[in-house]
Amino acid sequence: MASFDLAQQPHRRFNPLTGEWLLVSPHRALRPWQGQQEAPDRSQRPAYDPGCYLCPGNTRAGGIVNPPYTGTFVFDNDFAALTPDAPHGAVEVGGLLRAEAESGLARVICFSPRHDLTLPEMTTEAIRGVVDVWAEQFAELGARPDINYVQIFENKGQVMGCSNPHPHGQIWAQRTVPGDPAKETVQQRAYFQQHGRTLLTDYLEIELREQTRVVLDNEHWVALVPFWAAWPFETLVLPRRPVQDVTQLRDAEKDAFADIIRRLTIRYDNLFQTSFPYSAGLHQRPTDGEAHPEWHLHMHFFPPLLRSATVRKFMVGYEMLANPQRDITPEYAAQRLRELPEVHYKQTEA
Amino acid sequence: MASFDLAQQPHRRFNPLTGEWLLVSPHRALRPWQGQQEAPDRSQRPAYDPGCYLCPGNTRAGGIVNPPYTGTFVFDNDFAALTPDAPHGAVEVGGLLRAEAESGLARVICFSPRHDLTLPEMTTEAIRGVVDVWAEQFAELGARPDINYVQIFENKGQVMGCSNPHPHGQIWAQRTVPGDPAKETVQQRAYFQQHGRTLLTDYLEIELREQTRVVLDNEHWVALVPFWAAWPFETLVLPRRPVQDVTQLRDAEKDAFADIIRRLTIRYDNLFQTSFPYSAGLHQRPTDGEAHPEWHLHMHFFPPLLRSATVRKFMVGYEMLANPQRDITPEYAAQRLRELPEVHYKQTEA
Ligand SMILES: O=P(O)(O)O[C@H]1O[C@H](CO)[C@@H](O)[C@H](O)[C@H]1O
Ligand SMILES: O=P(O)(O)O[C@H]1O[C@H](CO)[C@@H](O)[C@H](O)[C@H]1O
Repeated sequence: MASFDLAQQPHRRFNPLTGEWLLVSPHRALRPWQGQQEAPDRSQRPAYDPGCYLCPGNTRAGGIVNPPYTGTFVFDNDFAALTPDAPHGAVEVGGLLRAEAESGLARVICFSPRHDLTLPEMTTEAIRGVVDVWAEQFAELGARPDINYVQIFENKGQVMGCSNPHPHGQIWAQRTVPGDPAKETVQQRAYFQQHGRTLLTDYLEIELREQTRVVLDNEHWVALVPFWAAWPFETLVLPRRPVQDVTQLRDAEKDAFADIIRRLTIRYDNLFQTSFPYSAGLHQRPTDGEAHPEWHLHMHFFPPLLRSATVRKFMVGYEMLANPQRDITPEYAAQRLRELPEVHYKQTEA
Repeated sequence: MASFDLAQQPHRRFNPLTGEWLLVSPHRALRPWQGQQEAPDRSQRPAYDPGCYLCPGNTRAGGIVNPPYTGTFVFDNDFAALTPDAPHGAVEVGGLLRAEAESGLARVICFSPRHDLTLPEMTTEAIRGVVDVWAEQFAELGARPDINYVQIFENKGQVMGCSNPHPHGQIWAQRTVPGDPAKETVQQRAYFQQHGRTLLTDYLEIELREQTRVVLDNEHWVALVPFWAAWPFETLVLPRRPVQDVTQLRDAEKDAFADIIRRLTIRYDNLFQTSFPYSAGLHQRPTDGEAHPEWHLHMHFFPPLLRSATVRKFMVGYEMLANPQRDITPEYAAQRLRELPEVHYKQTEA
C-alpha cells in the first residue's frame, strides 16, 4: 500500500470484470449544483390501475388481454427489440461498414399483480417468486439453440427510462453474446485459467477481509460496492458459492437471494427517502453450449442518484468521450448504505 | 450485400473505432411512450446574468472575479476533477483491487460573453474563436510532460448534466490516456499498419460514395451519422485531410470547422425546434510523445433526444448491462437531419 489517500485524491481504479479503468475525483462532490433536478417519485399509486397495460385482466397493445394473474406473469414484449424469425444476412463494405442480422426474444416479467408495489415493498416470498421466474426463463431460453445469451434486467423509475411504474423487469435473449458479458467472459476466463478459482471468489474473499465496501450479507450472498463502481451507489450482489447461472442455485440460496435483494433495495429507498431508481440485472454464463467454469453469477445495481432524491450523477461529456468518472468514493457510498435501517421508510411513516 | 433489410430488421453493427458492437432495432421506435418527458429549454435568457458565475465581470467560487472578456475566456475549473499536484502512489491487492494516483488539469472555456447564446446562435467568426482556443489549449497542455491526453468537450443542456446555461465547454487533461481514446488508438493503429492510410480516410471515402449517412459538408469537412452511431442523432464531424490534432489545421480548415459546427448545430436546433442538448467533443492523438500517424482528428456529437423535444433515448438496462442499442436507423436519422434548413428557427420566428 502506498501513502497516497484514496479518500482524498484523484485516482484511477481498474475494473477486473471488464478490463477497463475509471476516474475517481473524491473532492468534486463539493461543487455547487445548479443543474437539472429530477422529480422524485412521490406518486401514490392504486393497487390496480385500469389504464395500466401490465395490470391483471387489462388489455395490452394489439388487443391481447392479460390473465388474472396473482403472482408473477411473463409475456413476449409487444414491441420486442429482438425477434426469433429475423432473416439471416450481413453487410460488409471495405471492412468498415459491418452489420449482421440478429435474432432473439424479448419478454416482460411482471413481478406482482399489485400496481403500487416495487421490489423493496414486496415480501421475501414474493421476491422468491421472481427469482424462480428468472431461473425458469433462463432454463427455457438458454436451452434454445438459437439463443446464446440471456440478459435479465429491470429499469426502475422514470429517470431510468422505465415506461410503466407497474413492477416489472425484462429479458432480452439473443443469438450473439453482447459486449459487456463478452468482456466479463474474457476477463473471468483469464483469471480462472491462471488461478483455478473464479475471479469473484477471490475478490469476495478480499472484500470480506477488508469489510470497507461490504453493505450487507446473509448466509449465501454478499452485497457490496465494488472497488471499481462507476455509479455513485452502484452495488454488486454475489453468491458465496460460485455458480454459473441462476438455475444452479439451491433452494436455500434462492431464498437468500430474495432476502438480500429485498434488504438492499429497502436500504436504497431509505437513502434519500424516495423510490430509488436504478437499472439492475443478472450477469450469467453465455448459453452457447460451452462449459464456462470461469463464470460466477452476479447481479449489478446501477442507480443514478448522487446527492439527493433530485440530484443525479450525469455520465456525459468526459464520461462519454473518455472514461467513466465518479465523485464520491465507493468506500463512502458503502458506509452510507451500511448505516441505513432495513425497515422501509414508508412503514416507519405509517 | 446480402438480402436482409437494415431498415426493417434487428441487426448488429460494428464500430471500427472502438472495436465494439451495437444492437439496432429499427421497428422499435413504433412503441408507445408513457415514460419520462424532459422539460424543453424554452428559457429566454438575458445577454448578461448577474447571478451567472461565467458572465464577464462576475465573481466565481472563492471570490475570483472574471475579467470583462469580449470573446472567449479560459480559466482553471474551480472544482477540478483533476489536479496537477496529486501525489504519486498506487494500491494493489491480489491483482483485483488496483488503483493509482492520477494527475492533470481541468479548465473551463467560455465560448462567448453573451449569456443568452449557444454555438448555433453564434457567428462563424465567433465559433472560429472557439476553434482557436481549442488549438491553443491543446498546444499548451499537450506540450506538458505530465499530460499525455487532452479531452476537449461540451455538455449542452440540462438533460446532459450541464450545470450552467452560459455557453461553455471544458478541458480535462491528464497523465494517462483514458479508455475511449485508448481503444480508438488501438483500432486506428491496426488499420493504419495494415493499409497505410487512416481508418477514417477510407471510411469517409465509403460514406461520400454511399451518401446515405452524410448530413452536410464543406470544402474541408464532412458531418455524417456514422454507420455505427449509438445515439439516435449522433454525428461524426471529420476533416477530409487526415490530421492528428487541431493545431495541425490550416487557417482555411479552421474556418471551415467553425462553419460545419455552426451549420450542424443549427440543424440540430431545428430538428425539434428546441435548443438541442448534446455532449460533444474532440478526439485527437494522445500527447504522449509518440508520432501517432494513425490518428485522424474527429468530433463526436452525442445528443440524447429521440422522438421530440421532450422524449429522449435512455441508455439503461439492456444498454448498461449488455450493449448499446438504438431504435431508429442511422440512415433515417441522417435523412431527417439532411432535410432541415440551415437558418435557425428562432430567426425564422423573429
Ligand atoms: O463539470 P460539470 O459541468 O459541473 O459537470 C458535468 O460534466 C462532467 C464532465 O462531463 C460530469 O462528470 C458531470 O457529471 C456533469 O454534471
Ligand atoms: O423496453 P422499454 O421499457 O420500453 O424501454 C426501456 O428499456 C430498454 C431496455 O433497457 C431501453 O432500450 C429503452 O431505451 C428504455 O426506455
